[in-house]
Amino acid sequence: MTSDGEEQTLCLEELARTSGEWLRAEGPESDIVISTRIRLARNVAGFPFMTQADDDIRRQLVDSLRTTISATDCGQHLQFVDVAALDDIDKQLLVERQLISRELAQSEGPRGVVIGEGEHVSIMLNEEDHVRIQVLHSGLALEKTWEQINDLDNSLEARTSFAFDEELGYLTACPTNVGTGIRVSVMLHLPALRITREIQKVHQAAQKINLAVRGLYGEGSQAMGDFYQISNQITLGCSEQDLLDNLAEVVPNILGYERRVRDLLCRDNKAQLDDQIARAMGILTSARSISSEETMHLLSSVRLGVNLGLVPEVTIATVNELFIHTQPSHLQKLHGGPLKTAERNVARAAYLRERLNS
Amino acid sequence: MTSDGEEQTLCLEELARTSGEWLRAEGPESDIVISTRIRLARNVAGFPFMTQADDDIRRQLVDSLRTTISATDCGQHLQFVDVAALDDIDKQLLVERQLISRELAQSEGPRGVVIGEGEHVSIMLNEEDHVRIQVLHSGLALEKTWEQINDLDNSLEARTSFAFDEELGYLTACPTNVGTGIRVSVMLHLPALRITREIQKVHQAAQKINLAVRGLYGEGSQAMGDFYQISNQITLGCSEQDLLDNLAEVVPNILGYERRVRDLLCRDNKAQLDDQIARAMGILTSARSISSEETMHLLSSVRLGVNLGLVPEVTIATVNELFIHTQPSHLQKLHGGPLKTAERNVARAAYLRERLNS
Repeated sequence: MTSDGEEQTLCLEELARTSGEWLRAEGPESDIVISTRIRLARNVAGFPFMTQADDDIRRQLVDSLRTTISATDCGQHLQFVDVAALDDIDKQLLVERQLISRELAQSEGPRGVVIGEGEHVSIMLNEEDHVRIQVLHSGLALEKTWEQINDLDNSLEARTSFAFDEELGYLTACPTNVGTGIRVSVMLHLPALRITREIQKVHQAAQKINLAVRGLYGEGSQAMGDFYQISNQITLGCSEQDLLDNLAEVVPNILGYERRVRDLLCRDNKAQLDDQIARAMGILTSARSISSEETMHLLSSVRLGVNLGLVPEVTIATVNELFIHTQPSHLQKLHGGPLKTAERNVARAAYLRERLNS
Repeated sequence: MTSDGEEQTLCLEELARTSGEWLRAEGPESDIVISTRIRLARNVAGFPFMTQADDDIRRQLVDSLRTTISATDCGQHLQFVDVAALDDIDKQLLVERQLISRELAQSEGPRGVVIGEGEHVSIMLNEEDHVRIQVLHSGLALEKTWEQINDLDNSLEARTSFAFDEELGYLTACPTNVGTGIRVSVMLHLPALRITREIQKVHQAAQKINLAVRGLYGEGSQAMGDFYQISNQITLGCSEQDLLDNLAEVVPNILGYERRVRDLLCRDNKAQLDDQIARAMGILTSARSISSEETMHLLSSVRLGVNLGLVPEVTIATVNELFIHTQPSHLQKLHGGPLKTAERNVARAAYLRERLNS
């Protein structure tokens, strides 16, 4: 996959210490929009779906797909990670990094992920479908993300046949993905809507137009740290452009809503807001032991404070990175070995003090 | 009452800015024992008790007692404060300072208090009894406090007749004070016993031997800031020395108990203790608004931390002072005018940041 055709092993230690480019708080609306993500579900024609695939078939799939992807000219260095060979901490690290799903981490048999430079591209092999292509960018970047993933998809399809039905479209393991196999997600940080409990209205409005509102780590995850992932619920009967247009119309409304509520909070509850943000910084820079949940809750206040100009000593990029680096596996990678929950809480507090007191 | 016989008016503005000597954390066991206080209840012979005294009689009592006290050679400068003439903030200031009782502050008619240098001596006029003499010292100082109050009492009695019955002893408005009219109190800071819920055992043990356990501001007040006032419940049938001996025996046991529990916490829950103390400092030095209750709760953790050597930048004298200076009236005096609750919470937070961040 490199220019000379030789694969390199992705160094997970280095990955844990660095910040994915999508965390750099660049791109449009990045005060509120953490990232834009699109994934496409694809299956290789002539192979059974995953539920019917034994380990032999799964291995053939991985080998065949690695060859296909290696041959793809996507203009960047791609690295394969053999997920089946990883220990639990490394698997969880990739989940925290949003490079693989919890399902891929927890499943069995031959499987892997191909990761591009800057972590914008990741291609999961043998997840629910044979191929799950993901492209992710900082800020609100629907068109840019769509163009990149569409090129990548075309480039792969030029070298392999995906299961496709003239009438239904792309065939996928789960019927909800049949058609385009696309999910478009935008990750938003909506602390003001959560503080004022207006977030419920966002949930209701989104549901009415078939958009799902999920937490940081997708389906079933809580909205920790006031992160909300808005994505399409259905694909069948919609073109990719319909779905993109839908989100392109809805997301600015939510951003406007969050910004109006922030303005109101600053106008009517400034003292309380100042206090909440100052206390969050106070605890994060003082605690000797802190859970992941409390960290995300307090970092959310700090992130709001940075956006409101109340915490001049911290940048949004730093806060974004802290959200990820204080997750259990990142902490353990940074520490250099496994840590029990209580030890992680102590290590997390030490890491936060070091990063935020400097 | 001054050397040249001329009274000076006590400057309450200055009082609010200074620290009573009894807060200086001097004297034996002052890591745990804040102060030792003795008060004597006396009534002037030939005058009706307070419940039967109209304003004329109350005025005569104040005038007569001021003259008597002025003539007393107690080796220090004494100043009279006309409590009836004070506004609510000033009355409350003297209550927070433990120089007068809430009862004296809230009652009606001519009344006052005579305050000695360093606030060790205060003599309330027209409280529940005509005279309530109080002597207060930092640390565990039962004998020293008793000697000083006994001298003062004798000196007053040489110049006026107190209501006394050969069989009953000193006559007082409330039957529970008849006899010696004495209450001996020791103010203890017992955070470890509260954290571990062992404080209930102290309550039970004290009750069995007729000792009362009260909060910072006496009867009915909560044990805010982990302060517990241990005092005799009854006086009738006991000599002063009996009561002093009783406390002299009991208090060291409680101190030993608190110290053992501190050692156990340091041994078995060090990480949690470190975290609690660090967070308390973090919030106190960061908050933009903070209630009196939360302040006392957090200062209690800091005080424990200072005693355990975990907060080297702060002294016990500073923490003791902060407990008093963050009370509502002290804050308003320091600020220079009345403040509503929300304004006080903001002023309190600003004051704490200024004192603890320096």
